[in-house]
Amino acid sequence: MKKPLILVTNDDGISAPGIKALIEVAMKLGEVVVVAPDSPQSGKGHAITLEQPLRLHPVNIYPGIQAWECSGTPVDCVKLAKNILLKDREVSLCVSGINHGSNAAINILYSGTLSAAMEASLEKIPSIGFSLLDFNWDADFEPCKEWVSYLMEFVLTQGIPMGNLLNVNIPAKKDFPIQGVKVCKQANSRWVEEYVTGIDPRGQKYYWLTGKFVNEDENGDTDIKALQAGYISVVPSHHDLTNYKSLPSLKILEK
Amino acid sequence: MKKPLILVTNDDGISAPGIKALIEVAMKLGEVVVVAPDSPQSGKGHAITLEQPLRLHPVNIYPGIQAWECSGTPVDCVKLAKNILLKDREVSLCVSGINHGSNAAINILYSGTLSAAMEASLEKIPSIGFSLLDFNWDADFEPCKEWVSYLMEFVLTQGIPMGNLLNVNIPAKKDFPIQGVKVCKQANSRWVEEYVTGIDPRGQKYYWLTGKFVNEDENGDTDIKALQAGYISVVPSHHDLTNYKSLPSLKILEK
Repeated sequence: MKKPLILVTNDDGISAPGIKALIEVAMKLGEVVVVAPDSPQSGKGHAITLEQPLRLHPVNIYPGIQAWECSGTPVDCVKLAKNILLKDREVSLCVSGINHGSNAAINILYSGTLSAAMEASLEKIPSIGFSLLDFNWDADFEPCKEWVSYLMEFVLTQGIPMGNLLNVNIPAKKDFPIQGVKVCKQANSRWVEEYVTGIDPRGQKYYWLTGKFVNEDENGDTDIKALQAGYISVVPSHHDLTNYKSLPSLKILEK
Repeated sequence: MKKPLILVTNDDGISAPGIKALIEVAMKLGEVVVVAPDSPQSGKGHAITLEQPLRLHPVNIYPGIQAWECSGTPVDCVKLAKNILLKDREVSLCVSGINHGSNAAINILYSGTLSAAMEASLEKIPSIGFSLLDFNWDADFEPCKEWVSYLMEFVLTQGIPMGNLLNVNIPAKKDFPIQGVKVCKQANSRWVEEYVTGIDPRGQKYYWLTGKFVNEDENGDTDIKALQAGYISVVPSHHDLTNYKSLPSLKILEK
């Protein structure tokens, strides 16, 4: 039987430990092609590169795997993979990650990892974004591999409804053993920003973003709640931002 | 009566004609503070700046208006405005734009203009993103000002449900007279990419993004349909990407 073609990308950059773990899982399930950013792209959201040309270079850092590094954003990587490198091939699955740090709740909006997965879903490729709740560069990805494999295999064999991507977040190792997998909604939440301010070596004032995550959805069946209970959270997500609940009441502004 | 405080931003940069038009409308309705990018930020989506410090400089290009240019993305502008410049003040409305070009349908995902408005909605500030369907730098914003004013006044006086932003797109001048305002859903659509490829002066291959917009939602009550009929489209949008329709069927992957 022909092996499924799996596109692997991320936002932490092509040499990040998280993507290595994802490639190792994907290799066991299909033919793997990697197209990932040549530099860290955390927080790039759904950014695309319009004002500059893009570069693609083949790299040989994963034995036996076709891999390219790209000068653009995670979304650029998926667009170039689909439209240039894999133009005439059918991609069965796109996986993005494994991100170093949570992309649960509102973080999906800022995340290059998840935006890459969303771009793949727009290209009609089933896709999954994976994140581990551990920011450390030497985070241990081993214990989550079996779960990553289970979810990839599920999508490869059973599919997901067209236009969806799965936002998968995995509790950090210290919270193991993982209790299982929960399918849930994105928690309503926000960041309360705090800026570190300072004076640079040239005497100019600067502001550097930091902040505190605030969950405002304590009672719902949410990804944050699942993660706090030791479960892997899976949120079926899509690109339609219409707030259908508010639509009827706003009809009064029609003219 | 105290004037409402209106925050104005955009993604085309602080000197773009579109933001000038928006400031002129906002000045008639309240006290205006402008915080906008110091360079064009089209296509930046919900990107934030994590790896670099940010700069804010007061600028004096709009007489009588407090304005700052920011070295970051449109979302950075809103975060800095809310958390640094207007920390102790209540912002009644955030308006972003007027964008040079459509942000209807799927374009909302890539748009810095709309991401800025979404960030304001996350900060619990009612917000509107405005776009004119004319990419030209010398587009005529005059004819749409009365409609922009109507929508801003509506939100200032009647409010919108918390967590919403309005994605407003306005037909180009050649399609005037405008037929009115329609409240509708985001059209299901996508871009079919085409990359211009070439060799740069140093002999290296490059890829430059271009593409064709494809509407895949011909029959619905969508923004694209409203615009094609000469109406201004207003899509109530929000930050919850959960696909509630798919959630029950995906419960089978729970373990």
